[in-house]
Amino acid sequence: MPVVVELNIIPLGEGASVGKVLAYAIKELEKLNVKYQVTPMCTIFEAENVGEAFRIVEAAHEALFRVGVKRVVTTVRVDDRRDVSRGMNEKVKSLKVGLEHSTG
Amino acid sequence: MPVVVELNIIPLGEGASVGKVLAYAIKELEKLNVKYQVTPMCTIFEAENVGEAFRIVEAAHEALFRVGVKRVVTTVRVDDRRDVSRGMNEKVKSLKVGLEHSTG
Amino acid sequence: MPVVVELNIIPLGEGASVGKVLAYAIKELEKLNVKYQVTPMCTIFEAENVGEAFRIVEAAHEALFRVGVKRVVTTVRVDDRRDVSRGMNEKVKSLKVGLEHSTG
Amino acid sequence: MPVVVELNIIPLGEGASVGKVLAYAIKELEKLNVKYQVTPMCTIFEAENVGEAFRIVEAAHEALFRVGVKRVVTTVRVDDRRDVSRGMNEKVKSLKVGLEHSTG
Repeated sequence: MPVVVELNIIPLGEGASVGKVLAYAIKELEKLNVKYQVTPMCTIFEAENVGEAFRIVEAAHEALFRVGVKRVVTTVRVDDRRDVSRGMNEKVKSLKVGLEHSTG
Repeated sequence: MPVVVELNIIPLGEGASVGKVLAYAIKELEKLNVKYQVTPMCTIFEAENVGEAFRIVEAAHEALFRVGVKRVVTTVRVDDRRDVSRGMNEKVKSLKVGLEHSTG
Repeated sequence: MPVVVELNIIPLGEGASVGKVLAYAIKELEKLNVKYQVTPMCTIFEAENVGEAFRIVEAAHEALFRVGVKRVVTTVRVDDRRDVSRGMNEKVKSLKVGLEHSTG
Repeated sequence: MPVVVELNIIPLGEGASVGKVLAYAIKELEKLNVKYQVTPMCTIFEAENVGEAFRIVEAAHEALFRVGVKRVVTTVRVDDRRDVSRGMNEKVKSLKVGLEHSTG
């Protein structure tokens, strides 16, 4: 069953603007044919399991050192559910259904 | 200048499916007229400053207790930049420009 | 009932070493008489409620801009439990009891 | 050079008290002879590199499914610095030196 992964990478020592450097991490996801979504605060992707998720994150993380970054703080959140299958789309759908039915 | 905020709320003691409960937190953002974006792993919004950001998060967090949740773990990431103005759209644009120009 | 808070502040544009700058955030906790604990990855403190927690975090976050930092990414995790009272010490104790009784 | 890792595991569907279940994840660190530190909000450990860090996290994460948990949200933050060697102790020391010298 798929895991959904949130990835946030912060390169230190690269100045206040880091979009250019972060692009190298995203490129790595493309090379690995990962289905990902860029948001203003993180990149979200789906992997087959937690082991695959971490291998993808490691590749993205390492890409920054190859372009000369000295320090990288990478935060990963893995949502791993094994009673029912919930990919990226299902998770958003489930929240939207909740929104329609809530009376708050 | 705007801050961009990532919000992740996990209600504990509500079973493995939490979309229905989380909807009450999202409703709070709507009541406060917050410009937000739902993703498969978090909700992202823009606020005028860090103080406003935390008041919004507090409202969303409290909403879950009002519907009976006993324990809530809320994670907030605030990206606050004061040399140039970068809202939600500018942040994604900046990464996309990086992607086009990177050779990795 | 107390909330337990984890605080992680990353100043961008300050080079790869940030301990000297982060000290200004910690000083703010001391000024506010917050009971805190420094760890290798974050600072953990207790607050009376989620509102107080965010006011403390805001003060620590703002301190970095006063010493000239241009961009700050602050991550906060609040653990707020309202069925039983669990402060910093009780949380560690509860895990240690689990460790003694688990057979894994 | 060592990486310092922060690990936070949240089991869903296990009620509001999760210390007993989390102990199974910590036990895994002990089996792998990982040098770790428990805090009120996370577990912090040192690994030789990011690949080793993620293998350790995967083992801890999987341990919860073996005791019947249905959904696990695991958050990992890796601080990976390659210009100078900074383990868990050096990181805390560096912050304390900053605290002594700051005038804020």
